[in-house]
Amino acid sequence: MVPHLITALTGPINELEQRILDATPVIERWFRLEWMEHTPPLYCSVDIRNAGFKLAPVDTNLYPDGWHNLSAETLPLAVQAAQAAIEKICPEARGLMIVPENGKPSSFYLASLARLQLIFRQAGLNVRLGSIDPAVKKTASVKLPDGEKLTLEPALRMRYRLGLKDFDPCTILLNTDLSAGPPGILEDLHEQYLLPPLQAGWSVRRKSRHFRCYEEVSKRFGKLIGIDPWLINPMFASCGEINIHEPAGLECLRTEVDALLLKIRRKYKEYGINEKPFVVVKADNSSRGMGIMTVRDAKDLDQLTQPRKEKGKTALQPPNGAVLIQEGVLTNERIHDAVAEPVVYMIDRYVVGGFYRVHAERDVDESLNAPGARFVPLAFAGGNQLPRPGVKPGASAPNRFYMYGVIGRLAMVAASYELEATDPDNEMS
Amino acid sequence: MVPHLITALTGPINELEQRILDATPVIERWFRLEWMEHTPPLYCSVDIRNAGFKLAPVDTNLYPDGWHNLSAETLPLAVQAAQAAIEKICPEARGLMIVPENGKPSSFYLASLARLQLIFRQAGLNVRLGSIDPAVKKTASVKLPDGEKLTLEPALRMRYRLGLKDFDPCTILLNTDLSAGPPGILEDLHEQYLLPPLQAGWSVRRKSRHFRCYEEVSKRFGKLIGIDPWLINPMFASCGEINIHEPAGLECLRTEVDALLLKIRRKYKEYGINEKPFVVVKADNSSRGMGIMTVRDAKDLDQLTQPRKEKGKTALQPPNGAVLIQEGVLTNERIHDAVAEPVVYMIDRYVVGGFYRVHAERDVDESLNAPGARFVPLAFAGGNQLPRPGVKPGASAPNRFYMYGVIGRLAMVAASYELEATDPDNEMS
Repeated sequence: MVPHLITALTGPINELEQRILDATPVIERWFRLEWMEHTPPLYCSVDIRNAGFKLAPVDTNLYPDGWHNLSAETLPLAVQAAQAAIEKICPEARGLMIVPENGKPSSFYLASLARLQLIFRQAGLNVRLGSIDPAVKKTASVKLPDGEKLTLEPALRMRYRLGLKDFDPCTILLNTDLSAGPPGILEDLHEQYLLPPLQAGWSVRRKSRHFRCYEEVSKRFGKLIGIDPWLINPMFASCGEINIHEPAGLECLRTEVDALLLKIRRKYKEYGINEKPFVVVKADNSSRGMGIMTVRDAKDLDQLTQPRKEKGKTALQPPNGAVLIQEGVLTNERIHDAVAEPVVYMIDRYVVGGFYRVHAERDVDESLNAPGARFVPLAFAGGNQLPRPGVKPGASAPNRFYMYGVIGRLAMVAASYELEATDPDNEMS
Repeated sequence: MVPHLITALTGPINELEQRILDATPVIERWFRLEWMEHTPPLYCSVDIRNAGFKLAPVDTNLYPDGWHNLSAETLPLAVQAAQAAIEKICPEARGLMIVPENGKPSSFYLASLARLQLIFRQAGLNVRLGSIDPAVKKTASVKLPDGEKLTLEPALRMRYRLGLKDFDPCTILLNTDLSAGPPGILEDLHEQYLLPPLQAGWSVRRKSRHFRCYEEVSKRFGKLIGIDPWLINPMFASCGEINIHEPAGLECLRTEVDALLLKIRRKYKEYGINEKPFVVVKADNSSRGMGIMTVRDAKDLDQLTQPRKEKGKTALQPPNGAVLIQEGVLTNERIHDAVAEPVVYMIDRYVVGGFYRVHAERDVDESLNAPGARFVPLAFAGGNQLPRPGVKPGASAPNRFYMYGVIGRLAMVAASYELEATDPDNEMS
């Protein structure tokens, strides 16, 4: 199931939450059966927004960083899940190579890499970091703030294998999103496991495909537990490759934004929700928080063609190229008055931890994935707070984090569909 | 691998420990390969004694109780391991029935059952307790000290299935050691998973068989990491069905005790160990702590034929029937001056926690599994104490508990061999 982490939200359990908690055995069985048919990505993280009336994933990262933001207490869970993953992928493995992002790493990214390396080391593997950055020509060590040392080595390409000097790993774990497309050094590695597969990189991946898969998953899941799938599914539209500064591009965007706002307005009316609908416009193929804009009215888009008048906090920064127009989901969670959204981490089929992304200068309808965000690990619930399924309501603390674990895993199921659909070896695709 | 729990032992890491820690990737790979060939028991607990120079399992329980003695923090690990087990055994499962011991349960046993039920409930199953005690004729609820309620229902036998009223579980989890032999109600359940299998019950199981399997495992493992298997293997001998009060029975016991003491003495000499060898005599087919006696000299056995002179703390209580004569392993661990031994818990192939069995009135060469024992959960190591494999010795706290997790799992591998050897459906047996 899902570990019991303490959420910031402590109010009464609402109808949607109760429905999910009550259906636990049905939900867990459903996931078990899904994973008999589909292969989960080796790891992923999912950004979740809980509006109270609605709970939905807004972004699924298949090359998660931020591992150091998980509570240290949750490490054994990550290790156990990593063990389970390795048992399935490559039980005879001795070594695993992690391929980090190219470029000069930030101290945050180094801390994340160190934690990721620790997880797989504790799972019993020799783990080394192999860079595919052409600028990395020799082995370099970096000292981390906690005194730990990280060693980055240049990856060596043999005919069909990738490795390091005196190191021939069974599995290569990519921790770079390959926005620029898979480099030659990673192609045709038919003798090793390359995970996630190359089609998970942003040169192939599209958010719109992910959310189309998620929509399918949410429909089946909605039927399973008897809820309107909209309660867990952010609606979306997309424009293909557009130039937002040209009339045709802007027109497509305006039309889609208008139509989506109307659909949301109808849904809000159906459920008697007194909130202002909004949509979020973001690049269809990037994991970065750059260029994400909140749009509350199609007229807002006019600003795009006008010189910026004032340095407002909602200044629009449109993404270039194909865009995803996603139903905006408010977040109800706050930590010390700052708006917060949970991020759930998974390894193999298991939820292994999470943290809050918190942004003091952002509003409940804005993306928090922006400079200035802080991260608060979700702690484990202590002994007194153990949820006890089956006891009468109110007799034990509910595992609120459970719902987040369910939504995170639904997004992971969607990602597995997505990777199957784009698998070049899959004849069905 | 193994979660990092804090051990009582804090001295320097000795040679044997260092060897095990250094070989971690090799060891973990070996376990992964073992589990490709053999099926681990669904759960088990292993009593371990750490003499410093030697580290060995002394008892392997295939129907573990004492689950409530595990630290609450470790619950998510147990839940995740239970999930992994269910995924393999019966992914389509909705329900699991736990069959507890017959007879009036102690408050300790009820607390253990409650924890076990919680583990499998959190793993996403409907879990109910089905008693096979003929005295249990109707559903009864017991209130636990913490306010929780446990409901015990009489198991119902259908033609090929066992269940409860309106409850048809996929898996039946036995938590009773079936000392009196498997009752008819459990036989020929060919449509459900009955775990552990019936041959794990004490009417079939023999400690001598378990330790013969363990000896085989320890030889292979010793070769793997380059150590004398004796360092992890308690030597043993056995007498068949004997009556200890008859000359022939006593004679067998005396001969075997003498021979084993001699073997231990030789080993102690080989390693320059200045301790007094001892053996432990116990029933070959019982999990109870009753009738376990420490023998330091074959002459001690003379007392058995004489009326007891004084109420000494080492009064001999010989077991009846077949006996196991096991090399005694000192324990080096102490909690507040009281002698302690670690007990390691596993679900499926994963170490999920442990505790210390502590006995203030027992000596380092006596069994601690006796009335008066207390239990101290092993806590998780905090963030600062995260072991970091790969860093230079001394730079991070070693995961001492790791060695216990290795020995526990070696005993679990032995148990899997043992259950294969006694499987009535196994043509090889």
